[in-house]
Amino acid sequence: MSKPILAITMGDPCGIGPEITAKALAAQRREAPSCRPLVVGSAAVLRKAIILAGAELEVRAVAQAGQARYEAGRVDVLDQDLIDADALVPGVVSAQAGNAAYQAVCAAIDLAMAGQVHAVITGPLNKEALNLAGWRFSGHTEIFAQRTGTRQYAMMLAHGDFRVTHVSTHVSLREACDRCKKERILQVIRLSAAACRDLGINRPRIAVAALNPHAGEGGLFGREEIEEITPAISLARAEGLDAQGPFPADTVFSRAIGGLHDIVVAQYHDQGHIPMKVQGFRYDREKQAWSSVDGVNITLGLPIIRSSVDHGTAFDQAWQGRASHGSMLGAIDYGIRLAKSKFSL
Amino acid sequence: MSKPILAITMGDPCGIGPEITAKALAAQRREAPSCRPLVVGSAAVLRKAIILAGAELEVRAVAQAGQARYEAGRVDVLDQDLIDADALVPGVVSAQAGNAAYQAVCAAIDLAMAGQVHAVITGPLNKEALNLAGWRFSGHTEIFAQRTGTRQYAMMLAHGDFRVTHVSTHVSLREACDRCKKERILQVIRLSAAACRDLGINRPRIAVAALNPHAGEGGLFGREEIEEITPAISLARAEGLDAQGPFPADTVFSRAIGGLHDIVVAQYHDQGHIPMKVQGFRYDREKQAWSSVDGVNITLGLPIIRSSVDHGTAFDQAWQGRASHGSMLGAIDYGIRLAKSKFSL
Repeated sequence: MSKPILAITMGDPCGIGPEITAKALAAQRREAPSCRPLVVGSAAVLRKAIILAGAELEVRAVAQAGQARYEAGRVDVLDQDLIDADALVPGVVSAQAGNAAYQAVCAAIDLAMAGQVHAVITGPLNKEALNLAGWRFSGHTEIFAQRTGTRQYAMMLAHGDFRVTHVSTHVSLREACDRCKKERILQVIRLSAAACRDLGINRPRIAVAALNPHAGEGGLFGREEIEEITPAISLARAEGLDAQGPFPADTVFSRAIGGLHDIVVAQYHDQGHIPMKVQGFRYDREKQAWSSVDGVNITLGLPIIRSSVDHGTAFDQAWQGRASHGSMLGAIDYGIRLAKSKFSL
Repeated sequence: MSKPILAITMGDPCGIGPEITAKALAAQRREAPSCRPLVVGSAAVLRKAIILAGAELEVRAVAQAGQARYEAGRVDVLDQDLIDADALVPGVVSAQAGNAAYQAVCAAIDLAMAGQVHAVITGPLNKEALNLAGWRFSGHTEIFAQRTGTRQYAMMLAHGDFRVTHVSTHVSLREACDRCKKERILQVIRLSAAACRDLGINRPRIAVAALNPHAGEGGLFGREEIEEITPAISLARAEGLDAQGPFPADTVFSRAIGGLHDIVVAQYHDQGHIPMKVQGFRYDREKQAWSSVDGVNITLGLPIIRSSVDHGTAFDQAWQGRASHGSMLGAIDYGIRLAKSKFSL
């Protein structure tokens, strides 16, 4: 059984991405290493982050993925040399950093498309830096979709066995109501079922959340449940999928956390993100910081595997040594699970 | 220091209300009783529920509130005698039950308005039964508002020191977007501040949640943050209130749970209900039932104190002896806290 090769990008170098990457790699090394990590980006930045994290890891820069050796105590970095690590200013938006982060993602995608790595794991991007560098994307997902030519995709968040997918994400709440349509809901149900099967769940129990409070109270508080969601569930069931709902959104997530559903289809960004972050994020009042940020962001529907942290660059905490790497560890774990399943490793 | 008198209604007698009332009263008795409970409704129904719960309590029916004695081991019931306890069918909607539940609420409100009790604690109503009995209300809140002549009110949910109020509740998500207006948001901020002060928090730290994902991302995902929410926060601050935001809804609740905010103003029903129930509700897969349902529903803006369970009648689990009374205990605790503050008890 060979270990999957993961291309790992550190995200924007001015944020917490390099630090959590270094910490996660060190944690991976302490336990039996269950993957072969290939960091894509700047070897110099990773070296700085390893020192910050106090990790005992050497960095080995390579020019091509094929040159990586995956030796104990050493991390191979496909070095793009696009950033001056010593001139890097923590927490400040920069075009150079935005470009370096973007180029790392592109290279990682290309490696996965070429079959040279089994999955891509991404650290947090800064959208402003990305745009300052001339790359007009609202985030990773759009970069992955465009570069792999994918048109039907969905965002999944996961925290352990609690999983949520989204009918829409980065649009206003009014537009989210407009996007609550039968065809799209059916598509997301199908993508959710496929994702669960990739994780080894043979007959996934899929719950579909309602759009309106009390699941619309029989049409009194909105008709999307009657006209769009219920028909989508019926079509999914006709295809043999175990889809149920629409369930009132205020209790369906507790049921899923309790193990009653393998995945929940949420109708809009915050509907899925709120329960996931209430479950996975812990804020420490004394430290005025997040004491844990657990949760993984996975793009469904791509021809390649992509999992990611589900938090941002946290510029206000960049390069201070106190960032939590729980989400990055989770992203690596999910990448390994999906890669083992997809490639029968 | 005298103990506050609480009028407690059991909700629809065909649901779990009587059972959780009996269990909560028994639990109150085991600890030092910190209130004087006066159950309003049917003495016969409460007697049945006490037997079901295996509680060691006697029931003492009275015809008027002034006759209650609040003795140890005995619960006074203002007996309305509107239901045949032996003919009661668990889990079935009935006009008789709906009417009895409604009349109990009305009597409890009248006692509080007349100053005969310090607070009203309510068990869950069944809206269908209510309507079948000819009472056209969508729930408790509307009954309380109408009967007390209140026009400006808001729903607060609480779980320990995690509190959420709502700009709108029982309307479609599209209408909730329409109701996200400066004046109403300001009103709810004021009500939230007053509620916190009633709980002994001198300078409440109020967080206001955004309507759109990423707090609208600078206008890219909706303009309500710019046009309605931020102006409302500015007005509140000009009044000397410590209101902050708008915060992205996916992380503000974790921050509040972590103790950074005393209360969060949510823009719509599910935005506030999802984090509250993820936090307070636990589903047990083995038992196929809720193992805990903690959370309290408080109506702000009324001339009287009203706190309630934040779950429904659970007709599918009625009179089976396995309902959790955590929410009822929480409702009683919050009622005591608010009454002690309001009446300087």
